[in-house]
Amino acid sequence: VKSILLVAHGSRRQASNDEVRELTARLRARRGDGEIFECAFLELAEPSIPDGIQRCIDGGATEVTVLPYFLSAGRHVAEDIPNEVRPKQVEHPGVRITISDYLGSSALLEDALLQLAGD
Amino acid sequence: VKSILLVAHGSRRQASNDEVRELTARLRARRGDGEIFECAFLELAEPSIPDGIQRCIDGGATEVTVLPYFLSAGRHVAEDIPNEVRPKQVEHPGVRITISDYLGSSALLEDALLQLAGD
Repeated sequence: VKSILLVAHGSRRQASNDEVRELTARLRARRGDGEIFECAFLELAEPSIPDGIQRCIDGGATEVTVLPYFLSAGRHVAEDIPNEVRPKQVEHPGVRITISDYLGSSALLEDALLQLAGD
Repeated sequence: VKSILLVAHGSRRQASNDEVRELTARLRARRGDGEIFECAFLELAEPSIPDGIQRCIDGGATEVTVLPYFLSAGRHVAEDIPNEVRPKQVEHPGVRITISDYLGSSALLEDALLQLAGD
């Protein structure tokens, strides 16, 4: 069973965290059944990244793709997220846990921006 | 002459600001000639939003679309960016200066995420 864990930074502003949860629900609906789609937060909101990975595994996931919802390749993407993921990889050697490219690296992001700008 | 001003938060990490500048260069190339495409930063990097708007106007812009490169509809999008834009609207009543929806509101963002997740 494949699973995707959308990882956002997390905010003191609860509405921002809820935006991520609502986005996750929309993405889950688009992926359809037979796949798990959850979200987690690096800080300031729940669940944490390890708890989010565990949630996927408890749901039956044999693969977890951690998907960084970040615009730039800063310390959070380069270090903090891998540091949160690594202990779960050690804890669950039978589950394939990987980290995908971060959102800001996507060429489709350019399409989104040009559409918003009115193309 | 239309112009688009991509507005990012700005970072102490210079590489993150350069990522925005490189994205701006790619978007400018995609839009082609006859249009102005610049970037600006809410804080921590140059140019500021007013300076970015002025740069568009100095380049001949009669329309400026401010495009918020932000994932959530927080205070920065709801208040800080409009507060930076407003004095330039007053200063240049002959230029149509508007603010588009922010990146996080785009449905194409979902496509970008699903592609990164491996669809």
